Amino acid sequence: MSKIKKVAFELKEYEFPEPFKITGAIHTKAENIEITVELESGTKGMGEASYSYRVNGEMIASLLAMENNVNDMIKGVDVKDYRKIFDIIDGFSRTAPSVKAGVQFAVLDALSAEIGVPVYQILGGSTNRIKTDKTVGIDELENMVEKAKKYYYTEGYETLKIKVGLDLKEDIKKMIAISEATKGASYIVDANQGYSPKEAIQFADATYRNGVNIVVFEQPTMWNDLDGLRLIRQNSPFPIAADESAKSKYDAYELIKEGCVDFINIKLMKSGISDALAIVELAKITNTKLMIGCMSESSVGINQSVHFAAGTGAFTYHDLDSHILMEEDEFRGKFKQSGQEITL
Amino acid sequence: MSKIKKVAFELKEYEFPEPFKITGAIHTKAENIEITVELESGTKGMGEASYSYRVNGEMIASLLAMENNVNDMIKGVDVKDYRKIFDIIDGFSRTAPSVKAGVQFAVLDALSAEIGVPVYQILGGSTNRIKTDKTVGIDELENMVEKAKKYYYTEGYETLKIKVGLDLKEDIKKMIAISEATKGASYIVDANQGYSPKEAIQFADATYRNGVNIVVFEQPTMWNDLDGLRLIRQNSPFPIAADESAKSKYDAYELIKEGCVDFINIKLMKSGISDALAIVELAKITNTKLMIGCMSESSVGINQSVHFAAGTGAFTYHDLDSHILMEEDEFRGKFKQSGQEITL
Repeated sequence: MSKIKKVAFELKEYEFPEPFKITGAIHTKAENIEITVELESGTKGMGEASYSYRVNGEMIASLLAMENNVNDMIKGVDVKDYRKIFDIIDGFSRTAPSVKAGVQFAVLDALSAEIGVPVYQILGGSTNRIKTDKTVGIDELENMVEKAKKYYYTEGYETLKIKVGLDLKEDIKKMIAISEATKGASYIVDANQGYSPKEAIQFADATYRNGVNIVVFEQPTMWNDLDGLRLIRQNSPFPIAADESAKSKYDAYELIKEGCVDFINIKLMKSGISDALAIVELAKITNTKLMIGCMSESSVGINQSVHFAAGTGAFTYHDLDSHILMEEDEFRGKFKQSGQEITL
Repeated sequence: MSKIKKVAFELKEYEFPEPFKITGAIHTKAENIEITVELESGTKGMGEASYSYRVNGEMIASLLAMENNVNDMIKGVDVKDYRKIFDIIDGFSRTAPSVKAGVQFAVLDALSAEIGVPVYQILGGSTNRIKTDKTVGIDELENMVEKAKKYYYTEGYETLKIKVGLDLKEDIKKMIAISEATKGASYIVDANQGYSPKEAIQFADATYRNGVNIVVFEQPTMWNDLDGLRLIRQNSPFPIAADESAKSKYDAYELIKEGCVDFINIKLMKSGISDALAIVELAKITNTKLMIGCMSESSVGINQSVHFAAGTGAFTYHDLDSHILMEEDEFRGKFKQSGQEITL
């Protein structure tokens, strides 16, 4: 009865009321695939694929075209044997990691409904409370300062994610201005690969000397420049995180083994549930810290990362705010949120 | 209702009808601790700690003395939040890894009873079928050959584990004689740290030249000689496995990073469920192969490894035969066994 009867893909579009700019992209809308796994018992589980061309090389038409293949691959398999399904779907790790994530989560969500245990407890139930940051996209200095103040003072987000990487000198000015305007806040600064290694070191040096409280300096340089990342790490007072560099568990192993990172930013849309679980274990073995991020998930997709993060309890920072930045008719997360506070 | 009400330890003794000799030890009996986790609902889960002084440095009196502490540590915690309990018990990783294993499994077993899902499916349900080997202890050549023939021809075990490590020249003679008497069998040869690196290379060379079908050469030299293990690995045609060298997930990481091993032998009694899960993920990342072994578990303890192995589906070889070699009043595994075939 807990065998998979059918998997359905549905395209959903969401608008960002304010265009969201980062190094290498401007987001005005999200096109996500809602993935429903239906069991023979009638029970349903839901996941979401929020694809990325910039990071993963995925295109929406190709992902949508996989619906029949996914049905052929996992129809008839019992969701209680979820590792079997994880392994079958693992072949999508390079070609369609967001679909891998959405299908793997929908399977866990269906299992959850079938046995009456929330997904975060299937994954171990480490905690039922996490805090998310909120992100300030690239904009004019005044606008970024205003947004930072609003998020910090009015909305109560203690950790702000600040997007940089387009202009080193401007970025340093912006960070100092934001820091002076939001005293007491913590900053995750994300350059989205925008700097050369030397520029990244200059950025870290200048902000450090001006007392900017950067808790993570994310993906300062190109994803494939491991030597560059290591050089930055060795010359930055702030912890260095890999995001675009760390898609799979294999990437994470190399980055850690080669001494390139203090943090890994896990995103289910890059790794699926299965590689994300492997990176969690690897990080614990090697004392590497973790943050969890998102692409452009709605509340359906953010729900996945919330349950993963709470279940494993493995993350120092949670950057799960895409659903807050987009317009959504209905909140569909299986969690409660009040500002930065998320409870299960 | 799924909160832990009480944890009970009970000492159990089992006899080995034939003394079981390996390098560094002769086993005539096993003293195991049966661990029962009782929930507020009345549901019970059961685990077993089969301690090892030789490998872990554990002593039975000290383990038994931990009962009250374990109660204080995990009483009141919900077994659905099993990662919390895993983390609390993780402090026993060095001092009482067998108790860590037994408590962690008993928690999963109680959760299993509470939600009606077998433990191997809580762990992912990768397969419901595994094959175990059977072990030939150190003895006179004729006796070892007779036992190998009986296990292979009469009882149908395709893989035999052969204990060596006390006398290089004798061991080579024995392996050639066993190989000639059981053509078609596969051998896991376990030296239990008995050889110097050079002796191990001589052993591998001589058996290889005589066509002995060794599929794993286990722990040829001292647990703390990583350079020696690497040297043997680089000069052995047979895959090298670490057992005594690989207690924790941290050990496994070092062994793999330093290029010392083809296989890791996971034993729950060395690592508990939590480190074993981490080693499974690490092995997949690094293309390291896995076998799963045992100490002197009864069917209660072997049940733990059977469910772990089937759930994760991660093991090339299963060496889960201690319950077969000992006298037990009643079979209490939640699996079926017919010779080498184990089904869930």
